[in-house]
Amino acid sequence: MKTYGKIFSKICRAISIRNRWAREALAELISTFIMMLFGLGSVAQVVLGRHQFGQYLSINLSFGLGVTMGIHVAGGVSGAHMNSAVSLTNAVLGNLPWKKLPVYVLAQMLGSFLAAVVVYCLYSEAMYNYCGGNFTVTGPNETASIFATYPQPYLSIGGGFLDQVIGTAALLLCLLAIGDIKNSPALRGTEALIVGLLVTVIGMSMGMNSGYAINPARDLGPRVFTAIAGWGIEVFRAGHYWSWVPIVAPCVGGLTGAFLYKLLVGLHHQPEEEETKVEEMEKGNQETFSEFM
Amino acid sequence: MKTYGKIFSKICRAISIRNRWAREALAELISTFIMMLFGLGSVAQVVLGRHQFGQYLSINLSFGLGVTMGIHVAGGVSGAHMNSAVSLTNAVLGNLPWKKLPVYVLAQMLGSFLAAVVVYCLYSEAMYNYCGGNFTVTGPNETASIFATYPQPYLSIGGGFLDQVIGTAALLLCLLAIGDIKNSPALRGTEALIVGLLVTVIGMSMGMNSGYAINPARDLGPRVFTAIAGWGIEVFRAGHYWSWVPIVAPCVGGLTGAFLYKLLVGLHHQPEEEETKVEEMEKGNQETFSEFM
Amino acid sequence: MKTYGKIFSKICRAISIRNRWAREALAELISTFIMMLFGLGSVAQVVLGRHQFGQYLSINLSFGLGVTMGIHVAGGVSGAHMNSAVSLTNAVLGNLPWKKLPVYVLAQMLGSFLAAVVVYCLYSEAMYNYCGGNFTVTGPNETASIFATYPQPYLSIGGGFLDQVIGTAALLLCLLAIGDIKNSPALRGTEALIVGLLVTVIGMSMGMNSGYAINPARDLGPRVFTAIAGWGIEVFRAGHYWSWVPIVAPCVGGLTGAFLYKLLVGLHHQPEEEETKVEEMEKGNQETFSEFM
Amino acid sequence: MKTYGKIFSKICRAISIRNRWAREALAELISTFIMMLFGLGSVAQVVLGRHQFGQYLSINLSFGLGVTMGIHVAGGVSGAHMNSAVSLTNAVLGNLPWKKLPVYVLAQMLGSFLAAVVVYCLYSEAMYNYCGGNFTVTGPNETASIFATYPQPYLSIGGGFLDQVIGTAALLLCLLAIGDIKNSPALRGTEALIVGLLVTVIGMSMGMNSGYAINPARDLGPRVFTAIAGWGIEVFRAGHYWSWVPIVAPCVGGLTGAFLYKLLVGLHHQPEEEETKVEEMEKGNQETFSEFM
Repeated sequence: MKTYGKIFSKICRAISIRNRWAREALAELISTFIMMLFGLGSVAQVVLGRHQFGQYLSINLSFGLGVTMGIHVAGGVSGAHMNSAVSLTNAVLGNLPWKKLPVYVLAQMLGSFLAAVVVYCLYSEAMYNYCGGNFTVTGPNETASIFATYPQPYLSIGGGFLDQVIGTAALLLCLLAIGDIKNSPALRGTEALIVGLLVTVIGMSMGMNSGYAINPARDLGPRVFTAIAGWGIEVFRAGHYWSWVPIVAPCVGGLTGAFLYKLLVGLHHQPEEEETKVEEMEKGNQETFSEFM
Repeated sequence: MKTYGKIFSKICRAISIRNRWAREALAELISTFIMMLFGLGSVAQVVLGRHQFGQYLSINLSFGLGVTMGIHVAGGVSGAHMNSAVSLTNAVLGNLPWKKLPVYVLAQMLGSFLAAVVVYCLYSEAMYNYCGGNFTVTGPNETASIFATYPQPYLSIGGGFLDQVIGTAALLLCLLAIGDIKNSPALRGTEALIVGLLVTVIGMSMGMNSGYAINPARDLGPRVFTAIAGWGIEVFRAGHYWSWVPIVAPCVGGLTGAFLYKLLVGLHHQPEEEETKVEEMEKGNQETFSEFM
Repeated sequence: MKTYGKIFSKICRAISIRNRWAREALAELISTFIMMLFGLGSVAQVVLGRHQFGQYLSINLSFGLGVTMGIHVAGGVSGAHMNSAVSLTNAVLGNLPWKKLPVYVLAQMLGSFLAAVVVYCLYSEAMYNYCGGNFTVTGPNETASIFATYPQPYLSIGGGFLDQVIGTAALLLCLLAIGDIKNSPALRGTEALIVGLLVTVIGMSMGMNSGYAINPARDLGPRVFTAIAGWGIEVFRAGHYWSWVPIVAPCVGGLTGAFLYKLLVGLHHQPEEEETKVEEMEKGNQETFSEFM
Repeated sequence: MKTYGKIFSKICRAISIRNRWAREALAELISTFIMMLFGLGSVAQVVLGRHQFGQYLSINLSFGLGVTMGIHVAGGVSGAHMNSAVSLTNAVLGNLPWKKLPVYVLAQMLGSFLAAVVVYCLYSEAMYNYCGGNFTVTGPNETASIFATYPQPYLSIGGGFLDQVIGTAALLLCLLAIGDIKNSPALRGTEALIVGLLVTVIGMSMGMNSGYAINPARDLGPRVFTAIAGWGIEVFRAGHYWSWVPIVAPCVGGLTGAFLYKLLVGLHHQPEEEETKVEEMEKGNQETFSEFM
């Protein structure tokens, strides 16, 4: 037993990757995979189950908790961005070296693609049963929207672009706040949950127009998969060539949100002591009251 | 690169606001904005999506989690009241200088108004699709209730006033308890979540009569916006001039709730040591039991 | 201002109650009131709104979060039992002096009764609108079940008794575990949330038969109110005199659950050091593996 | 009173089990029982209540919170695996002595079986009312699926095997991450909640095909019960002898998930200091920016 253990230890040490870049890429890949596995899985379950196995709220909760689990899976290694717009914003903010950005994005895309593959395998029989093997991008039994996002018929490209900008701006603005130790951050060790709830609330309030991609990797990876797996090139053309919007708009939105948080809150944090003094002076005559409050 | 960085630093320092009042006003504005963006967004999604993209529970959860996110965004700067009734109560309790109250209220109103603007932009195409561009305050396809609150047909003004007083009283009573370190407060860093759940449960249990405004800023800001944006002066007249109720009643309710908490619980906290002695004497003969419990 | 403050302080000190019993009674009253306000409010909203303002899940969540809020309101003063079966079990376990038990129970009953009064006021107009002012205990438009619990038609008294015993046993078994520092307790400051989720899951899994009273105070207080307020003596007779079951069965169940936890888990906790040694010896040859795990 | 207390203490000490194995077995039994009581109870409530007392989401939440409660009940004693696939994986990882594995599995099976017994008692009258006393495994009024899992008609054995492998792999991958102190683990004392949410999200995203057993004990215990209690041997035969799949596939899946986490993340954790240095060097020229971020 002991000998076996020693050999095992040696193998482990041998295949252990010391290169930081490779480890971070793997971490981004696996965390994006986990998030998308839960997220896409829930869309498949709600659509294919014709709302008997969940409702829109289940999708919102699943993407949210998927993010929570993704953060636990990779947060300590790569920061668990799982979102190319988040990585870009972090690069601009100086929290991620620019050289790493393409590595992160690629890993996220690959993770998202692989999740689409696994969800396809998981629900392939259900999908055949649902649409009779006829994989379409539009129509009553379409299944393409299980994987990538498509706009509602009423939505213009401009309206959709705005939708994605607002959604991603809200995401980044709150993300920065949740982690800002000079403000009112989430308790360490519970950020994963709070960020998951943030994604949940974005889905509950901004999901109708176009399915809240708010993340290039979430959308492009699965879309490429569907193009290959039988839905064809139509997945890029549908909705007046919608497919480019969830790639470009979230990047604009992410930077907007981060900029707004910095401009309106982050930039103005002051050294603590100075403040307290002023505050104490201001309060002064309230003191007698607060004794009992 | 280094030079760019230095210039950037200088700009940041130059536009950094050191004035405490301005920083707090900005923080109240942006946190109220975020709360209302998620809250109003979810109402729009449920109404315009004809319950296919969420149900009443989604609205309750969205306003709740909107409060959670708002607290993370501004809690460390202004306290993230996001509610004029909360600010008023804090002023009466001596936790907010009276001079600051109008600043807080104005910032909240503006934040709430801006959120209505953004939600209007976000869902304008969906709204046109829903009601054919005919923005009405009443009728089956009315859209005014996406923004401001309106009473049920059966509700009298008196009944609605009571409804708002009770709801806001429950809010403030629990708010004080959640932050009371002499009682059983929420763990530091998780208060944002717990306060969000408090708003959620108020919506699940007191939302039917009149849409649980329980906050003058939540209601007036978006109502003014709808008056300007095409719904007209009717938004103030509807429901027997309902519009003044969510402004006045929450203030009464907030003070009532805070008063009740202080009167029934807060006032009677005693220095700890004294108590423990009495308690130990009282327990005495139970000790032998509790060894195993 | 200063003078006003001093007078205010004096008043506060004058009315501050130093008597421990009175303070605990007030705390039990107000926390039970808050729990029941949210709980009964949500039942009213779901029933009177004909499922347009919430579903059964909303009721489960509201009673759960009501418990969470109740614990924050009184946990540091009285322990926030809010449940006579919990108080009884604590008395038997030696955590509550027997002399205090009647005080706790009375305060809980009163708090629960007052919550029914307030919910009645809150929803009286909705109730008149729903049933035309004809308050009945049975029939399609019955409104008695908004306040107290009634069994399903298929349920026998024996089956209902068992239902209440099992539900309350599950409650107490888990309650003891959540607070057991020798086991795997909830993080301090988050117990309120976890206990709330416990009550939620009991409602989701054991709520159908008879509405999961699992608490004499939750049921009797509002039932007495309905008897007085217009539903008449029928509220005690309905369901083959069901009304005594949610009073007696939860007491039996609470003791059963506590007994089971002590017998199967609590009694067998050992001093820590001793254990670790044994464990280390047992593990021994696993060590080489766990290096990488 | 004192004498009574002393006798009581002696009894307690006398029946206190010091044997670690027996204590762990009891803990696994009772925690699995609690998890399954809430889980099966919710399925019964949703099925027998014909979706009036909960929906699919309630089942997902109940199994999740059931796991949360189970962890509080036994986490400090046995680790609260409650899942034979988790125990097997822990044995392979060297966290559980192999000798203990059969004890854990047996205790879990027994706990799961007993939960089925209690849920049967709890809902027997509702079940008779639902199906007229005719307990069937298939057909519109079947009740067997309240207890054990059955595949959808469209699902092949191969597809179902894959379904269970993927689900359990996701479970174990995330479980290891949630507890990995070198990564981004859940805050101590909140793991029970996070693991519960993990099981919830698995149910929301991978529950449709075959009811997400992802646990031999969850499935076999109640299945044996139904075979005895009146549904007959058909429970093992239904779905092309489906019954062996939720026993074998989760074991394969659990090991796969653990292997993937170790291979992609866990193995590559490096000693902390080394890393920070590299990181600091890499960041270098970003420093001037991050001052304000």
